[in-house]
Amino acid sequence: MKLGRLNHIGVATPSISDSITYYREVMGASDITEPFDLPEQGVKVCFVNTPTDSGMNGTQIELIEPFDESSPINGFLAKNPAGGQHHVCHEVEDIEQARAHFEGLGKRILGPTRIGAHGTPIFFLHPKDMMGQLTEIMETPKDGAH
Amino acid sequence: MKLGRLNHIGVATPSISDSITYYREVMGASDITEPFDLPEQGVKVCFVNTPTDSGMNGTQIELIEPFDESSPINGFLAKNPAGGQHHVCHEVEDIEQARAHFEGLGKRILGPTRIGAHGTPIFFLHPKDMMGQLTEIMETPKDGAH
Repeated sequence: MKLGRLNHIGVATPSISDSITYYREVMGASDITEPFDLPEQGVKVCFVNTPTDSGMNGTQIELIEPFDESSPINGFLAKNPAGGQHHVCHEVEDIEQARAHFEGLGKRILGPTRIGAHGTPIFFLHPKDMMGQLTEIMETPKDGAH
Repeated sequence: MKLGRLNHIGVATPSISDSITYYREVMGASDITEPFDLPEQGVKVCFVNTPTDSGMNGTQIELIEPFDESSPINGFLAKNPAGGQHHVCHEVEDIEQARAHFEGLGKRILGPTRIGAHGTPIFFLHPKDMMGQLTEIMETPKDGAH
């Protein structure tokens, strides 16, 4: 498997609305997508687009807020009430090949491959097997969109 | 202030050597810089370069290992023995202007502006004022190097 683009870093927040204000007013962001619900992942999501030297797609900041009381990020926010860095997401060309690669290395995969916030298949790997980082693996969108 | 490029994410590790093996063998990285000491920051450092669609500089993964027993990342590793996501670093055009911007907002700046791992001025902001993220602000290298 080849290391793919760092698609996004996932940042948990108790309030996407407060985070959007923060990224606009404190960090100077101008390009933030509309929040939407991803109930199957238990989160509300939006993306802060960051600039690049090339003008092409930069690594995004994915803001995630709990969708409900069963959200998998509630535990993180209980420990980190202000929010914080939650996961990293790398792209791969072929999600099934990547899954087989990590399985072959004995890495714990958290649940089935499913459709992520960018509409392509994703899965997560256990942070204890990934040097402390909850790691999302995402298939690169075939249309080049991110 | 305008949000700049996401230069890198800082990942603390108990062993840069182990992390390099991990990024090569588990994550499939092929472009990792030679580790070097940054004693004034209390860390050993190297960068994992990630690919981009444009072929230009992508967001890097900065691996940081404690330089000695007074390293500022020892506390993080005591809580997270396997390592993990430690900070985010955004570029700005003018470091003094950025410092004045954050000071004006009452954000706590951690120490003086100093020279960072890329050879340009940097400073850090307190995670409690930055929605839970230890945030590094770095002046964009004037020669376009990263």
